[in-house]
Amino acid sequence: MDMYGILDQKRRGAALSEAQIEYVVRGAASGEIPDYQLAAFLMAVCIRGADRFETLALTRAMTQTGATVGFDDVPGIVADKHSSGGVGDTTTLIVAPVCAACGLKVAKMSGRSLGHTGGTIDKLEAIPGLSAALTPERFKEVLSSCNLAVAEQTDDIAPADRRFYALRDATATVESIPLIASSIMSKKLALKTDVLVLDVKCGAGAFMKTRRDALLLAGAMVDIGRSEGRAVRALVTAMDQPLGDAVGNALEVWEAVEVLSGRREGAPLQRVSVELCAHMLELGGVCATLEEGREKAALALRDGSALGRLRAMVQLQGGDANAISSEGAARLLGAKKRLFVHAPKGGVVRGVDAMKVGLAARMLGAGRLKKTDEVDPAVGVVCRARAGDAVKAGQPLFEVHANEEARLDGAAALLREACVIGEAGDDEGAEAFVLAVI
Amino acid sequence: MDMYGILDQKRRGAALSEAQIEYVVRGAASGEIPDYQLAAFLMAVCIRGADRFETLALTRAMTQTGATVGFDDVPGIVADKHSSGGVGDTTTLIVAPVCAACGLKVAKMSGRSLGHTGGTIDKLEAIPGLSAALTPERFKEVLSSCNLAVAEQTDDIAPADRRFYALRDATATVESIPLIASSIMSKKLALKTDVLVLDVKCGAGAFMKTRRDALLLAGAMVDIGRSEGRAVRALVTAMDQPLGDAVGNALEVWEAVEVLSGRREGAPLQRVSVELCAHMLELGGVCATLEEGREKAALALRDGSALGRLRAMVQLQGGDANAISSEGAARLLGAKKRLFVHAPKGGVVRGVDAMKVGLAARMLGAGRLKKTDEVDPAVGVVCRARAGDAVKAGQPLFEVHANEEARLDGAAALLREACVIGEAGDDEGAEAFVLAVI
Repeated sequence: MDMYGILDQKRRGAALSEAQIEYVVRGAASGEIPDYQLAAFLMAVCIRGADRFETLALTRAMTQTGATVGFDDVPGIVADKHSSGGVGDTTTLIVAPVCAACGLKVAKMSGRSLGHTGGTIDKLEAIPGLSAALTPERFKEVLSSCNLAVAEQTDDIAPADRRFYALRDATATVESIPLIASSIMSKKLALKTDVLVLDVKCGAGAFMKTRRDALLLAGAMVDIGRSEGRAVRALVTAMDQPLGDAVGNALEVWEAVEVLSGRREGAPLQRVSVELCAHMLELGGVCATLEEGREKAALALRDGSALGRLRAMVQLQGGDANAISSEGAARLLGAKKRLFVHAPKGGVVRGVDAMKVGLAARMLGAGRLKKTDEVDPAVGVVCRARAGDAVKAGQPLFEVHANEEARLDGAAALLREACVIGEAGDDEGAEAFVLAVI
Repeated sequence: MDMYGILDQKRRGAALSEAQIEYVVRGAASGEIPDYQLAAFLMAVCIRGADRFETLALTRAMTQTGATVGFDDVPGIVADKHSSGGVGDTTTLIVAPVCAACGLKVAKMSGRSLGHTGGTIDKLEAIPGLSAALTPERFKEVLSSCNLAVAEQTDDIAPADRRFYALRDATATVESIPLIASSIMSKKLALKTDVLVLDVKCGAGAFMKTRRDALLLAGAMVDIGRSEGRAVRALVTAMDQPLGDAVGNALEVWEAVEVLSGRREGAPLQRVSVELCAHMLELGGVCATLEEGREKAALALRDGSALGRLRAMVQLQGGDANAISSEGAARLLGAKKRLFVHAPKGGVVRGVDAMKVGLAARMLGAGRLKKTDEVDPAVGVVCRARAGDAVKAGQPLFEVHANEEARLDGAAALLREACVIGEAGDDEGAEAFVLAVI
């Protein structure tokens, strides 16, 4: 077997065998196949596509060339949850403790902010002292102690994926359903949880802009997970507007605490979180129906048990547990400057562009332009209006939290573009949150 | 402008602008664009194709990022001839001196053997003392003196093409009409001759296996040449069987001398050479019609004037001029071992597979497996039968010239496969040589 023949075959559009795909992935992980051959491979796959057998083989090989974490020594049902990335998408900090409070063991390896979207690890690190760099042993100790652990993905998980990802990022080969599905799932499969719920974001603020693409990605990932014997479900959820009001690391921790304290009943972030919990609880056998799952989740938000789980986890991971309270979380919001972006006219908000809000937050320092950039935990944006809201001229649309004066103007300009105000009566009906379940 | 955007655009199948293509070619020539981005670019072009404007822009940019050779200081019509590569394809050593004898200035930069095909420079270097490493000044001096000069292409001609070529060879992106056409033509345009005749080989022993692909390549190259103001014509000629009987470097010099001495009237090599000459002479204005061109060329073969031109060129390039005579050329054939491959049965030869004969000659040492291999000038194969010939069992089909015992068996086995003998009456009609003129 040689890389030339594999490239030739894929260039022509023929499907590759499992052995050929394993050869490529092993060569990528070991470094034996040079960058230029891998780049040509990724471009060919991007254009020619990959069928479900190729996608599965690619995922499996990427998982198997790296480390895996098993949970045979952890009693109970172990569950994981993944979001494909959104703006104001703080669901992990809500769903994980809620499901933990309801009896699941929630084991999650998370990433950092990417492009215009946030990352759970950056958010957690807004809590003083908290470390997400856990050994597999410590990860499982935390998990066993409080039903919940969130760690940063280690470098030995799916090393071929890391090499592919860097090349895709440099060669415009990111937009490929099989490559995205296998990249995500190779890391999810490395964590051998019993249950996996996937939240595939769809819309202007997501990587998947259309329902078609989001459904294809969700379908591909569920297919891979089931083929590997996992109980897996995907929800396609809306990401045209920011899901929560808060966009930024400490701000999102603060908002998660608000939701976990039962003070955001009916808000989009609360509703999507409850839906994700219901699927996770039902899939994990904690309850028989989704309705029962919703009730259990809502109760865990009302009675403080979910908040308690998150507080316990933060403490076990070295963080300041006081941050997981209304007063403590508010203290995390220490940006030097606050500025409001006001409505230029009265009317009804037609929409708030999640992409622009995400980019504005990144511009303030909440995200990264390149991988090595540091994030500023305190900065970000709070959205004070969303689609359907009636606003008066001069009313605040966004609250900007900034530490650097120089970054304020650009962010404010983006935010002014982000919120579109129309005439009263233009309302296009209620906002949908969950678009599909697969 | 950035490479990411260019890759993204080509991946989606959209055409690139002239400025975008120039950006890629300049970055390839300067080394600023890394291999992996160029490899992804080549794969995308290979799969998505390139339209005629893109192909022209690519060619032009590749020519212009390197050195060019002009002939304003050389009086007369300067002509060039190119073959896309074949087996027993010694036409350059015949066509160039014939056209020189008829009054054209034939300026040719040639390459070395590639894959299973021969290269003019390797053939010329079978002549003791001859150097094809000429400075542009010396190249033009030789050209002015004897109407004829053949030099090896220098490294400063189309450097982007060299970088592309190495990557294409490693990433299975060789088979693309726009990439092949622009690669050949970028080097042809660097030599600013008035007239260019292209011989596009077509068949089992050529890089273009089908008439469709050969016509597409010929059409693309003629289009590029005309767009750049050159008088250019392409002949598509058959390469199912070796064109000449001799395959190997000194053997092909010997056979060229045979043709140039008027002793191969009517043989395929002689006939295709005369056709190429006729087009070159007519295009260069030396004669008014192709028929007149054929007559002039045939006369130059009969009267020894073409042989005299080649002899003069060999002498001017430092070679042993005695080699350009029947006795002298025969002395070049000094391989230690000769062996015959015999007909296993009587019948009529259905065909002689040029690819297998070419690979057998390479196995004997006439060609290269990798770029740094040395060729053995003396070794090769002489075909003693071709399609349509009646043969008796035990009659020699091939004469093998070898220097290494160890290489004989493999080459003989390939040659036994190369010649297919059928029943008398299976004859499929006369062999066609020139398949199309564009």
